[in-house]
Amino acid sequence: MGKKFINELKVNEKVNSYFILRKKNLKRTKFDKPYLELSFQDKTGKIEGRLWDDAEKFDETVETGDVVQVKGLVDKYREEKQLKVDFIARADDRAFRYEDMVRAVENRDEIVNKIIDYMRQIENPWIKNLSEEFINDTQLMSMFKDGLGGKSWHNAYIGGLAEHTYDVIHIVDQMCGLYPEADRDIALFGAFIHDIGKVYELDAKNMEYTVQGGLVGHIVIGHNILTEKIGNIRDFPGDLKTLLEHIILSHHGEYEQQSPVLPKTLEATIVYQTDELVSQANAIREIKSAQAEEGKEWSSFVTIKKRKYYIK
Amino acid sequence: MGKKFINELKVNEKVNSYFILRKKNLKRTKFDKPYLELSFQDKTGKIEGRLWDDAEKFDETVETGDVVQVKGLVDKYREEKQLKVDFIARADDRAFRYEDMVRAVENRDEIVNKIIDYMRQIENPWIKNLSEEFINDTQLMSMFKDGLGGKSWHNAYIGGLAEHTYDVIHIVDQMCGLYPEADRDIALFGAFIHDIGKVYELDAKNMEYTVQGGLVGHIVIGHNILTEKIGNIRDFPGDLKTLLEHIILSHHGEYEQQSPVLPKTLEATIVYQTDELVSQANAIREIKSAQAEEGKEWSSFVTIKKRKYYIK
Amino acid sequence: MGKKFINELKVNEKVNSYFILRKKNLKRTKFDKPYLELSFQDKTGKIEGRLWDDAEKFDETVETGDVVQVKGLVDKYREEKQLKVDFIARADDRAFRYEDMVRAVENRDEIVNKIIDYMRQIENPWIKNLSEEFINDTQLMSMFKDGLGGKSWHNAYIGGLAEHTYDVIHIVDQMCGLYPEADRDIALFGAFIHDIGKVYELDAKNMEYTVQGGLVGHIVIGHNILTEKIGNIRDFPGDLKTLLEHIILSHHGEYEQQSPVLPKTLEATIVYQTDELVSQANAIREIKSAQAEEGKEWSSFVTIKKRKYYIK
Amino acid sequence: MGKKFINELKVNEKVNSYFILRKKNLKRTKFDKPYLELSFQDKTGKIEGRLWDDAEKFDETVETGDVVQVKGLVDKYREEKQLKVDFIARADDRAFRYEDMVRAVENRDEIVNKIIDYMRQIENPWIKNLSEEFINDTQLMSMFKDGLGGKSWHNAYIGGLAEHTYDVIHIVDQMCGLYPEADRDIALFGAFIHDIGKVYELDAKNMEYTVQGGLVGHIVIGHNILTEKIGNIRDFPGDLKTLLEHIILSHHGEYEQQSPVLPKTLEATIVYQTDELVSQANAIREIKSAQAEEGKEWSSFVTIKKRKYYIK
Amino acid sequence: MGKKFINELKVNEKVNSYFILRKKNLKRTKFDKPYLELSFQDKTGKIEGRLWDDAEKFDETVETGDVVQVKGLVDKYREEKQLKVDFIARADDRAFRYEDMVRAVENRDEIVNKIIDYMRQIENPWIKNLSEEFINDTQLMSMFKDGLGGKSWHNAYIGGLAEHTYDVIHIVDQMCGLYPEADRDIALFGAFIHDIGKVYELDAKNMEYTVQGGLVGHIVIGHNILTEKIGNIRDFPGDLKTLLEHIILSHHGEYEQQSPVLPKTLEATIVYQTDELVSQANAIREIKSAQAEEGKEWSSFVTIKKRKYYIK
Amino acid sequence: MGKKFINELKVNEKVNSYFILRKKNLKRTKFDKPYLELSFQDKTGKIEGRLWDDAEKFDETVETGDVVQVKGLVDKYREEKQLKVDFIARADDRAFRYEDMVRAVENRDEIVNKIIDYMRQIENPWIKNLSEEFINDTQLMSMFKDGLGGKSWHNAYIGGLAEHTYDVIHIVDQMCGLYPEADRDIALFGAFIHDIGKVYELDAKNMEYTVQGGLVGHIVIGHNILTEKIGNIRDFPGDLKTLLEHIILSHHGEYEQQSPVLPKTLEATIVYQTDELVSQANAIREIKSAQAEEGKEWSSFVTIKKRKYYIK
Repeated sequence: MGKKFINELKVNEKVNSYFILRKKNLKRTKFDKPYLELSFQDKTGKIEGRLWDDAEKFDETVETGDVVQVKGLVDKYREEKQLKVDFIARADDRAFRYEDMVRAVENRDEIVNKIIDYMRQIENPWIKNLSEEFINDTQLMSMFKDGLGGKSWHNAYIGGLAEHTYDVIHIVDQMCGLYPEADRDIALFGAFIHDIGKVYELDAKNMEYTVQGGLVGHIVIGHNILTEKIGNIRDFPGDLKTLLEHIILSHHGEYEQQSPVLPKTLEATIVYQTDELVSQANAIREIKSAQAEEGKEWSSFVTIKKRKYYIK
Repeated sequence: MGKKFINELKVNEKVNSYFILRKKNLKRTKFDKPYLELSFQDKTGKIEGRLWDDAEKFDETVETGDVVQVKGLVDKYREEKQLKVDFIARADDRAFRYEDMVRAVENRDEIVNKIIDYMRQIENPWIKNLSEEFINDTQLMSMFKDGLGGKSWHNAYIGGLAEHTYDVIHIVDQMCGLYPEADRDIALFGAFIHDIGKVYELDAKNMEYTVQGGLVGHIVIGHNILTEKIGNIRDFPGDLKTLLEHIILSHHGEYEQQSPVLPKTLEATIVYQTDELVSQANAIREIKSAQAEEGKEWSSFVTIKKRKYYIK
Repeated sequence: MGKKFINELKVNEKVNSYFILRKKNLKRTKFDKPYLELSFQDKTGKIEGRLWDDAEKFDETVETGDVVQVKGLVDKYREEKQLKVDFIARADDRAFRYEDMVRAVENRDEIVNKIIDYMRQIENPWIKNLSEEFINDTQLMSMFKDGLGGKSWHNAYIGGLAEHTYDVIHIVDQMCGLYPEADRDIALFGAFIHDIGKVYELDAKNMEYTVQGGLVGHIVIGHNILTEKIGNIRDFPGDLKTLLEHIILSHHGEYEQQSPVLPKTLEATIVYQTDELVSQANAIREIKSAQAEEGKEWSSFVTIKKRKYYIK
Repeated sequence: MGKKFINELKVNEKVNSYFILRKKNLKRTKFDKPYLELSFQDKTGKIEGRLWDDAEKFDETVETGDVVQVKGLVDKYREEKQLKVDFIARADDRAFRYEDMVRAVENRDEIVNKIIDYMRQIENPWIKNLSEEFINDTQLMSMFKDGLGGKSWHNAYIGGLAEHTYDVIHIVDQMCGLYPEADRDIALFGAFIHDIGKVYELDAKNMEYTVQGGLVGHIVIGHNILTEKIGNIRDFPGDLKTLLEHIILSHHGEYEQQSPVLPKTLEATIVYQTDELVSQANAIREIKSAQAEEGKEWSSFVTIKKRKYYIK
Repeated sequence: MGKKFINELKVNEKVNSYFILRKKNLKRTKFDKPYLELSFQDKTGKIEGRLWDDAEKFDETVETGDVVQVKGLVDKYREEKQLKVDFIARADDRAFRYEDMVRAVENRDEIVNKIIDYMRQIENPWIKNLSEEFINDTQLMSMFKDGLGGKSWHNAYIGGLAEHTYDVIHIVDQMCGLYPEADRDIALFGAFIHDIGKVYELDAKNMEYTVQGGLVGHIVIGHNILTEKIGNIRDFPGDLKTLLEHIILSHHGEYEQQSPVLPKTLEATIVYQTDELVSQANAIREIKSAQAEEGKEWSSFVTIKKRKYYIK
Repeated sequence: MGKKFINELKVNEKVNSYFILRKKNLKRTKFDKPYLELSFQDKTGKIEGRLWDDAEKFDETVETGDVVQVKGLVDKYREEKQLKVDFIARADDRAFRYEDMVRAVENRDEIVNKIIDYMRQIENPWIKNLSEEFINDTQLMSMFKDGLGGKSWHNAYIGGLAEHTYDVIHIVDQMCGLYPEADRDIALFGAFIHDIGKVYELDAKNMEYTVQGGLVGHIVIGHNILTEKIGNIRDFPGDLKTLLEHIILSHHGEYEQQSPVLPKTLEATIVYQTDELVSQANAIREIKSAQAEEGKEWSSFVTIKKRKYYIK
């Protein structure tokens, strides 16, 4: 029997499947009966659950972060589906495929290779060397490949950082075709590294900001990675260094968006505006694919954008 | 002798060339002597001028809007070059080429053809028909071809509207490659018409807003053109009509930018963000090409963007 | 026995009355017992309800939108009154009066007549003809008469659109007395049509925005109605057309409020500011009449206005 | 010979008339010749002037603030008319009429009487008494009658304060007709006193803010006048006092507009929104009457409103 | 047995202690059983409670505002501790210490004395007299001593007003050392009275805004107290009065923060900026002390400051 | 004869003194006569000048940046004093004192020593070591000592950076006395380095932003200096590093003010708010000392603060 995915569950359906256990709380009803408040996830979404019988016993058998086998019934509570769980246990490793559990871009190796191909087109020898400094840092590139593009708004899944970076590079390259006045080497490399600081900003495990993420932020973290890499190259030209630093520092485009400087070069402006373009397109695609339903015209209200999207 | 262009003039150089006369005022010095305050233009720029002798006589021989022959000396006044004019007269039509006088995109016929090629790729039959309604309106297309992309910020020259529209279509097409969830037909057509209202918003002659431009604005004018064209097609589907209207109405992206609605579809968002991307790239290219000088690091302060650009 | 109105219900009182059924959901308690979550409305307000026994049976006998007979007890849940329902059934048409069910301005015929009287005072023949185009469009006028003034903030009930329009016309007329420099014909007619697009923006049935309402908006819809009506009058003067268009397009006063143009004429400014004046007065009256209670000093927090009102 | 008014002067015309001398500076040309920089005003406007010969001698004969006789020629300098003055001297008091010199509302006595008539309609005895406290304060009422409505934006002339106050009262009264839920006595009296603090905020002589005006402001000054007058009435009810205070303190409507509290009563909201309505109408009327010219479509840019007005 | 404080309670612990009863509602479960929803407070914090048995009987024995004896068990509900109450009764006055119930600055007498010491250093005789007017108003000083520094953000406890005022005075004094150009007498006295209006703005009993607080606000109330006190001193210099008024009126620093005037003197700017400095430091200290937990890095989201604080 | 300072010059006075030549342009009058447009500076201010005779000859004898001897007359032009220069020549080095030419804090050595004294009070050994890294970097400390506190708003003179830093440290220390919950070592050290990046942001010679200043900015430059210095200390604790980085990165307090992160610790908040406090006090002191005049009540309009200051 294949795994039943969360986005396939239907109300009143019986379930026997495998999910990651994301949250677990032992609680008591008003009438003092212990029960378990649970939260499950697989690569297709999340669902809440309740276990009413033998809660204390089951509580001891599983831990947050485990992949678990779950048996029960799909119920509805306050307009949301919910699992009424009868049985829960740690899953045997052979019982499930890890790729089914966590949302990830499957071809992220290939995407990273396409990014490297773009970098290998760079002609300026200094930037070429510098890009190799990044490409050859296998630990950094591995974190980059598996990084999140964001916490929630866009590309918020494993491989999302690489996917997003590829989108930016691809459109920036097109823009350099339309605007040959832009320095393509600077623009392409800037596109590659613009979000590199995200590898340390987010704790991919529990999808939360790290202390460094909260107190320093990915813009300045990325800037630090860049200056460190440049420091490895003897006599790297000062002005070129400043122009590359500038792309990372200004890529949020406005002070209000946490950029400590405004984009003041053609290349930085192209990277910033392309970042806006592709991240919004990605975010809306996500909203549509998550919320689309037969006959439904409007998404739920998207607070960050102060609107509902038309998703029919 | 070839025409001397305004951007080639050097201080203390003698001039004998042809320009459009943009402004002309007969004035008097403190000591009551009449003189002429003049402003000239050709496709490379503008320059102020003063004519000190026989001002009243010369005043009667030329009119604003004429192409004139000008003799005199290049002077400097408050950091700007200025012409000290000795002689001015209406130019004989054979003495100059009109293309030298006005800035224009030279290959704008070709650009419009490339736009039409894109439209011919549209598969949805309703949108295909609708695009032909536009393409076959020769008067509209002629105004579109010669239209200004803007009053001052970006693509502010003849053919700038077509050039800008092409840039938007090209990048939107690339985005549809990255995001196949977007309806390419809607997005491409929306890109084509997004700024169409500009043909009636600006008076290309004196580069000023028309009354309609000031009291209605290009967004709603363009919307009217669209609804009129759709009115010519029997049984055009209502929902499709609304989706196309929406792209024009929302393409400034924010209420503060005069959009009466926010972009709420994937296609409208892509058109809006692409418009931002290519128009800013164009604007910065213009600033660089107009202000670049040996050794100069910063542009003058760009009020609308609250910054100086780095133009070295 | 007369109908018991919702705003008259008291905690612990027995109820047997008639309401519109607005929402209905069959749910299950934690202990798996089915129950009905219900919502009722009449012209005096709304109330939530719960039906605990025989929920599945009752569920099949009524539909959302029905006028229903309800028997039960008034209870209190989280500071709000709630109905504990014992019995529910479709009401016989003779058992209730429809006017008791839905909030509506009773004298809206009269109000519309007073508006028409104002229009008949217009002297400019073009505007006079144009106003007759509207007045003689019986379908439009019928929707206008029964239209909502808004979704929630002001005049949010049947006839509210006409009532609000009358208020604006009346004060605009007074302003033309104080400021004879204003063109009274333009101002009065502009006041009449300023919100006309609302007839298609809101779905009066379920009080939600239509797709057209969400993607085009009442300002541009109203503008379209106007240009269509003007299109019926041969040789309507272009400048006058633009001045009338301008009033609709600018009547929200600020870009942030979705106006695609700012008010730039005396008449448009008067209509905009009068609209602000009377709609806020109406909104506060509604808040006071809905929330006033013996000894209560402050309304609940009004998010849209960032304050509590003093309602004693 | 009748007085020649400033708004009647034509370029190249000879002048012999009477104006107030607003500014006077003795300066030197580049060639060290002394000359006088002058500024004149009458009730129709302002004009700059220059006196080139015998500047030092004339300088000693007149003082800023004098009404002076001026002989000379109307010239043009940087698009503005300017007087080339040959002769200037203090005017004999019988040579001119003071009413011709300063812009003022002529029927301001009548306007104040109409305001008093409104106050006499008040029925609440406490407010009635309080209004008499104001009416009987002859010094205050005299300053009120001759006060400026503002420094520049609206009603910026003698009697402008009374004129503006009347406009507000008149529309507020109409609103109380439409909205009988408003307490008409509170609203009318609030309208009367809303700007009373302006009598001490502006120095009418040189049209500048007083120290008190700059450091305290007319809102709090007016509030002080009110609390002082209420202090004269024994046992004035505390809540009524607070409601009246509230109208003055909130009548700018938003914190950003210097209101220390937001309008939170129906009456305060009506006064605030009416103030907006009539002051903007007045301001636009002023712009139109000052700038209207044959064929001119747009006013100059109005910085405070970020737009040009259509004034044709 | 000593009192058990709220911040010491642990889940599953039995409780028998004394608290203030802040809220009390008799409600019914879905199954119609009456129960009591309760809220308790002591000087260390707040906790919710539920009483399930004999609710109607207990309901009659206690009133909101009473100090009550409570017996029961500490439970957890939605991540928050909650009391399951078995018994509740009015407490005997000798059973508890009132200081344990309400949060208050213990040494507020001493703090007020230190403030008075600062005032006694003032050398300007007018301000010295004026400060004595305040110091000798025992009722005002008593309210000042026991006043709240704010409703929730900073110093929101008894004595918080005096504590906050002392902090401001202390730093203002240091600033006068660094900037001797500031008038120390004006600055110190301004610091003393800047928040004096808070004594009438907040109803310390139920921690709500008074009607006067909501419709007039502490800035203008404080200004009134000042002008009244100055009124008691014959011939108080007008300019000095204005400078002192200005400090109160401008001490929120920005119009958006409800200041009717902006700080325009060195002294007013120092008081405003110092107020910001010390109130934010206090607010963060409160957040840290309330939320600090072993291993916890971030506070909950602080809406007013749009961030989480790092509290480790 | 002692040097005549610029702020001592009086109209019509003869001058023979020494200034820095800041600008020099050879221009021509309308009548084609060459003249020199000049700008001079000494430590007391700036003044414009014109040289009318033998301009071309004098032009060749002096260069911008030279200290020059100037003879001429003090004139007035458009309300500003101006020098009519008869003679100009490079000054002999022994003819003037350099300290008279450039505005500088005289006791800046002493100020830096007081800062070092504060640093020596630090107890945390890691921060102590780190502070020595800074103190022992003689080149950095020398630039720090002679650095500008800003370009124009506050402390905009040599030594201004050290002076400003001392002010911040002093008040931060006082705040740590009031709020012992703050970590004094972190706060004092953060205060010391908060503006350290300014040493590379501004080109002190011509008082302009460097390329690095414009494209990276002093916040990130300072952050880089810090991370570099920390890199010199083996095993510096990661969390402590992050807390120190955070103070620099957040010390502008708001995103709009170019901070890439908001202050989220007690120490960072204290440094930010203290920076605001002392820099504003300094700025107003500068305005007062530059603009104070007998009887003058208001400063000129300060655009950055949107107000005039009361400077009497």
